[in-house]
Amino acid sequence: MKLIIAKNYETLSELAAGIVLEKMMKDKRVNLSLTAGNSPKGMYDILINRLKDTSFDTSSIYYYNFDEVPIEGERYGLTMGALREIFYVPAAIATENIQELTIENYETFDEKISHDGGLDLVVMGLGSDGHFCANMPNYTSFDKEVFSVEMGPGHELWEELYEMLGKKPGNKMVTYGPKTIMKAKHLLLIVNGKSKADIVKKVIQGPVTESIPATILMTHPNITVILDEEAAQYL
Amino acid sequence: MKLIIAKNYETLSELAAGIVLEKMMKDKRVNLSLTAGNSPKGMYDILINRLKDTSFDTSSIYYYNFDEVPIEGERYGLTMGALREIFYVPAAIATENIQELTIENYETFDEKISHDGGLDLVVMGLGSDGHFCANMPNYTSFDKEVFSVEMGPGHELWEELYEMLGKKPGNKMVTYGPKTIMKAKHLLLIVNGKSKADIVKKVIQGPVTESIPATILMTHPNITVILDEEAAQYL
Amino acid sequence: MKLIIAKNYETLSELAAGIVLEKMMKDKRVNLSLTAGNSPKGMYDILINRLKDTSFDTSSIYYYNFDEVPIEGERYGLTMGALREIFYVPAAIATENIQELTIENYETFDEKISHDGGLDLVVMGLGSDGHFCANMPNYTSFDKEVFSVEMGPGHELWEELYEMLGKKPGNKMVTYGPKTIMKAKHLLLIVNGKSKADIVKKVIQGPVTESIPATILMTHPNITVILDEEAAQYL
Amino acid sequence: MKLIIAKNYETLSELAAGIVLEKMMKDKRVNLSLTAGNSPKGMYDILINRLKDTSFDTSSIYYYNFDEVPIEGERYGLTMGALREIFYVPAAIATENIQELTIENYETFDEKISHDGGLDLVVMGLGSDGHFCANMPNYTSFDKEVFSVEMGPGHELWEELYEMLGKKPGNKMVTYGPKTIMKAKHLLLIVNGKSKADIVKKVIQGPVTESIPATILMTHPNITVILDEEAAQYL
Repeated sequence: MKLIIAKNYETLSELAAGIVLEKMMKDKRVNLSLTAGNSPKGMYDILINRLKDTSFDTSSIYYYNFDEVPIEGERYGLTMGALREIFYVPAAIATENIQELTIENYETFDEKISHDGGLDLVVMGLGSDGHFCANMPNYTSFDKEVFSVEMGPGHELWEELYEMLGKKPGNKMVTYGPKTIMKAKHLLLIVNGKSKADIVKKVIQGPVTESIPATILMTHPNITVILDEEAAQYL
Repeated sequence: MKLIIAKNYETLSELAAGIVLEKMMKDKRVNLSLTAGNSPKGMYDILINRLKDTSFDTSSIYYYNFDEVPIEGERYGLTMGALREIFYVPAAIATENIQELTIENYETFDEKISHDGGLDLVVMGLGSDGHFCANMPNYTSFDKEVFSVEMGPGHELWEELYEMLGKKPGNKMVTYGPKTIMKAKHLLLIVNGKSKADIVKKVIQGPVTESIPATILMTHPNITVILDEEAAQYL
Repeated sequence: MKLIIAKNYETLSELAAGIVLEKMMKDKRVNLSLTAGNSPKGMYDILINRLKDTSFDTSSIYYYNFDEVPIEGERYGLTMGALREIFYVPAAIATENIQELTIENYETFDEKISHDGGLDLVVMGLGSDGHFCANMPNYTSFDKEVFSVEMGPGHELWEELYEMLGKKPGNKMVTYGPKTIMKAKHLLLIVNGKSKADIVKKVIQGPVTESIPATILMTHPNITVILDEEAAQYL
Repeated sequence: MKLIIAKNYETLSELAAGIVLEKMMKDKRVNLSLTAGNSPKGMYDILINRLKDTSFDTSSIYYYNFDEVPIEGERYGLTMGALREIFYVPAAIATENIQELTIENYETFDEKISHDGGLDLVVMGLGSDGHFCANMPNYTSFDKEVFSVEMGPGHELWEELYEMLGKKPGNKMVTYGPKTIMKAKHLLLIVNGKSKADIVKKVIQGPVTESIPATILMTHPNITVILDEEAAQYL
């Protein structure tokens, strides 16, 4: 694991954007899984501007969302909706380059990724409970590939999502499992803010345990972790 | 994980030798960690013959033993002694290409491997208890890099080694930890014989758990597992 | 360039088969371009036997022929016909894993290869005139991707093919160009027999020149050349 | 070849800096060859600032200058002097991480690079005459590894350097050859300004010829070319 501590969120965002662009500018098909959420907002702003100021063939850059929760009555689920808003639409990503993971196709998605040549980069954030993608404590295990979690009214995950969204989530969520993520060629974990400092310490310095799912990522042969100083304060 | 089931031990040995030779014949520095033990004997016989029938520059192929137990009164420990006997001496490997892991240098060995460009291939066998290298159940955890285990007369590991060897082992053994192995570019696990069929099933189909250390290997992005039909019989 | 000199054709064939199998046994999509011709016959015999004695998922191994000459009145061209006979049929390669280059699709084949994730390995022979694939002296240049050569009765290439085959070739041949080949991740050139000793010397020790097309291959970052002793006698 | 056209020099510099930083932030030994000259100045300014705002272990990042001309009476040659001024000193690069190519050690430098694990990235500019590193037209050929050129008072290269520097160059210059460069894992060519527009067109669209040395780079499997709009105006 390569640990990078950036002075501030701007630097963190620049470094992360640089890593994504390095992949985009390779002379080959590139398969990316990028996170929604708050941590990458600065990165996306830079990416959008940089892509606007640059002209090149982007037809071989493909995007795979790494988890999804359907929203009742909406075309796009939670993740795809967020990615469209913060990146896909403002960056004018072509629809045919977006490879949507859904509750319909998740059972064959590992095979699809493999057939498409594997993932070149996964950019992830870190949950305060140690989750990555939608690998929540108690709802994942290290041997899983893409999997689904049944939920519904009354289920703690469903209720949490309902409260967060103000909209009804579906009765199932899907996510890459640890094995799916571990097969990617390069992992980038970006974490900012003091509210994450505790879990950062546990993930980086603690034992590898399914109760803190992101600890498995520390065994990947090619993972870069970028923190801002606040997230890194207990290291 | 890519699972290969070979009809018999000869085929398993040919496939494994082919993988090692593919690395050796690259136009770059190549760092290999090869296992001692019984499973690879067929592979080494093929390698020795193939190298005899071939002429090429082998000066950039380096060998790193992945564990060691000193033997009282002997120059070479258990692993180095075995590797010298089954491969290094008959294949006439140059001394300067052998990078010995010892109880003296193990604390800086991860750093050395990294400085040397990382491991291109680790060839391992599988213990009946699920150990790989010297990562024994109860004596390892997934977050370890190269580490040592203190032992000595009365300690279960020491007594076991003493009985097996008929010679006194030292009071310390050293081994690559799971993190050291997981950083390698390619892992090859070879297992043969029906006595391994049970543990093979647990490693390949079971949960990832420190009580069966080799289960972590199943999350490596580039691991090839070659079994003979006997070892594969419960899959 | 990594130069390997094998004592004899059997060893050359074993080494080449080992390299192909190493790619096949990776846990990823693998794209291979394999040569027809005489040099690889021993390699194919070994591959066919090894695949028969082995059981594994081969659905992510894809085959791309690197050149083609249609034959009047026949379903398969010269290259596909030969590959089917010496490898695809006896090794029971699934039709959907064979990605045929034809005079109909050659103009988009570089794009297809790139979309499919690039070539992992190209196995080639060497012509006595220094050609590789169908990059003949005077009919190629180093800046070419997949391209076609117009020919027909009276044209030297057409007449040569007609005489060799005893059947009428089409009026066009297609081949990967030097740039297509140079983009592959690993190149393997196998050459045997004393009739090739002269051209081997020129290719390996001489200047890089379009009049001996294979000289460009010597600048590839990851090329393995395997010769038998006869082909290597002037080095 | 992946062609990127940046709106302006600032964007070009940001993209180039992002590529260099992506390598630096890998969890492995990284070997870089970076160009001196005018084109990369913006890139170095960004790198220096980004490194100041970031804290991480840089001990496994090594720097190799790709050419050198000694200057009479000075400790550092033309290239090392310039690199120290624009990057090594302001970025506080540790002396032990700088692997100096000199007229004393050039004959074993290809071997050294190979032993050190190969070059991960070479960042180059483009001369108006099509040279890269010090591969000048008439003074290089595509089959060369690291080589030297004898010069001295009266020699056109010596006189040109003398006029440019106002100081006496030595009687020999050394440079990576085309083969040295072609072996690197990733090439980055950055070119800006309308004075380069002509040569850019020839390099990108013309035949591969030793009279325009940089044309060989177009056959590398992993090369990124970043131009500003002025340099790209004739494409």
